[in-house]
Parts: sequence; C-alpha cells; structure tokens
Amino acid sequence: MSYLNQAAAGGEKEPRTERGRKTLRRLIEAAAAEFGERGYHEAAITGITQRAGVALGTFYTYFESKEEVFRALVREMSRATRAHVAEAVKGSPDRLAAERMGLEAFIAFVRQHPELYRIIEEAQFVAHDAYREHYLTFADAYGRNLAAARSRDEIADGPDEPRAWALIGMSVFLGMRYGIWDRDLTPGEVADAAIALVSEGLRKR
Amino acid sequence: MSYLNQAAAGGEKEPRTERGRKTLRRLIEAAAAEFGERGYHEAAITGITQRAGVALGTFYTYFESKEEVFRALVREMSRATRAHVAEAVKGSPDRLAAERMGLEAFIAFVRQHPELYRIIEEAQFVAHDAYREHYLTFADAYGRNLAAARSRDEIADGPDEPRAWALIGMSVFLGMRYGIWDRDLTPGEVADAAIALVSEGLRKR
Repeated sequence: MSYLNQAAAGGEKEPRTERGRKTLRRLIEAAAAEFGERGYHEAAITGITQRAGVALGTFYTYFESKEEVFRALVREMSRATRAHVAEAVKGSPDRLAAERMGLEAFIAFVRQHPELYRIIEEAQFVAHDAYREHYLTFADAYGRNLAAARSRDEIADGPDEPRAWALIGMSVFLGMRYGIWDRDLTPGEVADAAIALVSEGLRKR
Repeated sequence: MSYLNQAAAGGEKEPRTERGRKTLRRLIEAAAAEFGERGYHEAAITGITQRAGVALGTFYTYFESKEEVFRALVREMSRATRAHVAEAVKGSPDRLAAERMGLEAFIAFVRQHPELYRIIEEAQFVAHDAYREHYLTFADAYGRNLAAARSRDEIADGPDEPRAWALIGMSVFLGMRYGIWDRDLTPGEVADAAIALVSEGLRKR
C-alpha cells in the first residue's frame, strides 16, 4: 500500500537524509491509513504517529498540522495515481491502446488503494484547492496526451480539454463502480467494455 | 431554485393537504440552501426553519432529524435532476440526439443549482447509502435507455451497465468543470464537444 515507491513526497520540508525520507514516507503511508479509515474529522495526528511508529514530535519535524499532512497526502496520491497509469501505458502502440491500458491500470490501482476515493473526495470539503489541483493537473496532462495523439494522427480531431474531462469522469466513475463498490467484472473486462465506447462511440455502423 | 415543481418529496410522512405539501416543499428548498451554503456539519435545523419561515416545531412534523431532512433532500435532488434531463430529451429523434440534449440540459441544470454537487458529494460522507442510491438509480435508468436504444438499432451493441456508468461519469465531470468551476463554454458548446466523443469515439476515420 505504498504511494511513495518511486519518489519522495513533495513537501516544503524535504528531508535531506535517506533516513528522513523514510520517516516521511512512513508518515504519509500512516496518514493514508488513518484518513482512509477514519475520515478527516475523526483522524488524529496521534493516530498517524502511532501507525507510523514514530514519536509525536517527529510529526512536527515534517508537518505543521493535520491539514498540512492531509494536503501532502492528496498531492502524493494524485502523483502516485498518475505515475501508475503513465507507467502502465508506456510502450502502447497508439493512443487508443493507451486509453484501454490506462483504464485497466487505473481500476486495478483503485482496488489496491480503496482509500484513494475517500481521501480525494473528502478533499472537496477540507482542502478544496487540493481537490481542484488534483483534477486540473490530471486534465492538463490528459489534454496534452490527446493533443500529441492528434498531431500524430492517432485520434480524430476534437477539443482536447472537454474530451479530457469526459474521459477522466468516465474512469473515475468506472473505478468507483467496478473498483470499489462491486468487483463483478475484472479491470480488463471493464476496460474492454469501455474502450469500445471510447474508440468507436455509440453510433451503430 | 425549486426542486419540487412537479412532485412532492417522497418522504415517509407524506402530507395529506395542499398546505402541508407546500410547507414540506419550503422546508426542502430551505434545506437545499442551508446544506448547500454551510455544509452538513455546520448546517442547523433552526437555519432551515428560519429560511423556510416556519416554527421549529413544524420541522418535526415532517422530519425527525437533520440527517432525515438531508436524506430527503438528496432523494429529491436526485429525482429532480433525472426528471429535468428526461423532460429535455423527450421527443429526441434517437438516442444519440438524446445523449446530446441530455448533456446540455444537465450542464444547464447544474448552473441553476450549483449546490447540487456539494450536497450530493457530501452525501458520500454523511449518508453513504443515499449517495449510492442516487447513482445506482441513475445508472439503472441510463442502462435501460441504452438497452431500449440497442433494441431499436439506434446504437452499437455493447454492455449497457458499464456504458451507463462511463456516460454518467462523463456528465458529472463535465458538469463540475463547465457547470461549476468555470463557465468558459456554454452548455451547448460542452455538449457539442462531448457528443462527438460519445457518438463517434476517438478513432480517426
């Protein structure tokens, strides 16, 4: 359940030692468990330090408040989600293949990290700017991928930004329904079902 | 800003008189304003009764608690949203036209009722079953519309349920981005941008 396999959290108090980075990582992972299980309002800094196995004072070396660690967690989950999907679609022969692989990878990721939704969704209410930032960053990256695919003639012309938001919404809802609420289809089956819509549309041919 | 133009709220204490129905309607509309502005935790029953211009005791004729009126509000917003979209797509020549008109109507509805998102999204945390019910009901109706369109040969074959969830997610995210966050495109422009994706897909032809 690690969000920080590949990179340290981009906090303002970036640790200078490997040991410091490991402690920060443990705190962020403990925060994911604490916020994911208890929600923002019930979560406690002592709950985070207990889960991380560190002293309370150590927390304040890295974060000033519960809100600050929550914001760092949202940023880190956002980054980890994008990195996971980007890694999965690397080497796709074209954008349509990347859409399918990205969706499958996203649903698999959601199943491994079911606390992702609760934390990102709760950010709407406790750190709205972090919530916006998460989706604006996602949409920006997605829109640039679509623009690049257009310029390579891999997809039909169309407005990058609304298409990016539409495709993100699709993934988020498929992830909620088939990743969290009910796992009656595998990630691959969900991706197969959705990719026909994404690639070919609803029109009967 | 009325959610109850066409039907009374489906509460358990259905009023028997026209006057009772009017009071219930005012309470639900006041609840939409109170929960929409202040959020669930800050919202107060006295805030609702003051906005509705009724005595505190009147509230308890209809609801037992803040949670109960919140649940009734979520159900009513859910019903009103579906009714608004269903009305807008009535008389569409086919399913693809209905998809476009439904999306435009949804984005316009969101702009008229910006509190819709805050309330439905907050239901995730304070009345999770009402949140699930909202989207499950939506997806069920959507899936049945797709099945009917398939049987009339209006759309390509494909699995109704995942397609319904994908299309709902698309609408919800386009509504959030272009209905609430930033209104840089009109509802019609958003619908035009998305309908090409819905009808034709991303494939270059």
